[in-house]
Amino acid sequence: MVLYFIGLGLFDEKDITLRGLEAVKRCKRIYLEAYTSILLCDKGKLEELYGKPVITADREMVESYADQILEGADVEDVALLVVGDPFGATTHTDIQLRARERRIPVKVIHNASVMNAVGASGLQLYRFGEAVSIVFFTETWRPTSFYDKIAANRKLGLHTLCLLDIKVKEPNFEMLARGKTVYEPPRYMTVNTAIEQLLEVEEIRKEGAYDGSTMCVGLSRLQADDQQIVAGTMKELLSVDFGAPLHCLIIAGDIHVVEEEILAFYKVT
Amino acid sequence: MVLYFIGLGLFDEKDITLRGLEAVKRCKRIYLEAYTSILLCDKGKLEELYGKPVITADREMVESYADQILEGADVEDVALLVVGDPFGATTHTDIQLRARERRIPVKVIHNASVMNAVGASGLQLYRFGEAVSIVFFTETWRPTSFYDKIAANRKLGLHTLCLLDIKVKEPNFEMLARGKTVYEPPRYMTVNTAIEQLLEVEEIRKEGAYDGSTMCVGLSRLQADDQQIVAGTMKELLSVDFGAPLHCLIIAGDIHVVEEEILAFYKVT
Repeated sequence: MVLYFIGLGLFDEKDITLRGLEAVKRCKRIYLEAYTSILLCDKGKLEELYGKPVITADREMVESYADQILEGADVEDVALLVVGDPFGATTHTDIQLRARERRIPVKVIHNASVMNAVGASGLQLYRFGEAVSIVFFTETWRPTSFYDKIAANRKLGLHTLCLLDIKVKEPNFEMLARGKTVYEPPRYMTVNTAIEQLLEVEEIRKEGAYDGSTMCVGLSRLQADDQQIVAGTMKELLSVDFGAPLHCLIIAGDIHVVEEEILAFYKVT
Repeated sequence: MVLYFIGLGLFDEKDITLRGLEAVKRCKRIYLEAYTSILLCDKGKLEELYGKPVITADREMVESYADQILEGADVEDVALLVVGDPFGATTHTDIQLRARERRIPVKVIHNASVMNAVGASGLQLYRFGEAVSIVFFTETWRPTSFYDKIAANRKLGLHTLCLLDIKVKEPNFEMLARGKTVYEPPRYMTVNTAIEQLLEVEEIRKEGAYDGSTMCVGLSRLQADDQQIVAGTMKELLSVDFGAPLHCLIIAGDIHVVEEEILAFYKVT
């Protein structure tokens, strides 16, 4: 029997592949990984399409209860559904390792992820350097490790994909201190917030990795009918409304002629 | 009406998404882009699934006859099928530009491509630097621009995805000189040839970008049942038979602990 890692693609229930759907239909238990990305449609739509229930697996479940997911995967097929590609932005290393240790065969069914779909911007994928994560700044936690990476990419003329923070099922620490587990409402970083934080860090570091006039592309809800792709300087994109999540941001490096021609269609107006 | 760019994914007819299949069924004309990558199944299988004919569009057709493909796309839906993701490894810039100039709406249906599927190796996608292409060396044409890019990536501790040459529908120049167009049989670069060429260039440049002991991962036929993922040094992988095409190669940068754990499952034996 098999533990399937099945990519759901970018947007809704229709982005699964035929191969993925066939595998889901063979599975006795279906888990939806729901903490490294988020499903942009209702889980009920998946269940309707598959004709069976889908169990939401949050971080705690995948990390602490991997054994529960693996239980019986040696006698029946089990699926772990992942938004995007199963190994797109994160590797589900722990559960994969445990499966392999138990000699449960692992099969991966690939799909689009933000890591390759950003090619839609017109900036060519092979000209991207290392990707960076931008997390929500708090009063006391303002990690800026992205700065040096962006600087290194731009020095080489390369584009940088910025993956923007999502906070799902974060406990309210005040309530936690009183012994109650209450979750904060989910938060998804917008392109605007990302740029604000980027400019704030440049203001402090002043090494010229980028500035308000640096060309960027903001993308939201890739593959949805109302997806947005807007190209402009950091300053210009600050005031663009990219709508509902998920957002991501590309900081351009050197822009080649062919890239420029496509970007022109996406220029902020 | 719409010009669809539809990603077919990695392996066979079953790797299209439900969204992609729905779009194909709406289209009056369906072209298969067959020169930047190759379909790993018989075209007849696509036609059977779609219930309509699929026209193979080679380089000449997409580049010179873009107008023919676009003809009527303002009154009926037309699809251009692309192996992998439509903008995975190359942007079909010219035809996209012409469609936009004619104000024909363009819709992209994303899918997995080698650019994100290599996450299956255990090496994390966000730690890849710029991708490189390795083309078949000939007597007189031995481009080595990949060398500096690999060196730059490795200096930053980043992995490098090497996209390996495919030669499809290349004219035989001897016959061409005699006024006849005869095509050479298709050739696909193996992991072994890529490594031979890489080591040959290191031998000349001697700047230590990599050597025979550099850890790599070779991958072939991703998503097929007989896909192969093998990790080992360049020297070790030289003698591994990766079987039928398509192949690709990752030259590892610094390997993190979690990456190491997954790689261990793929180590050459």
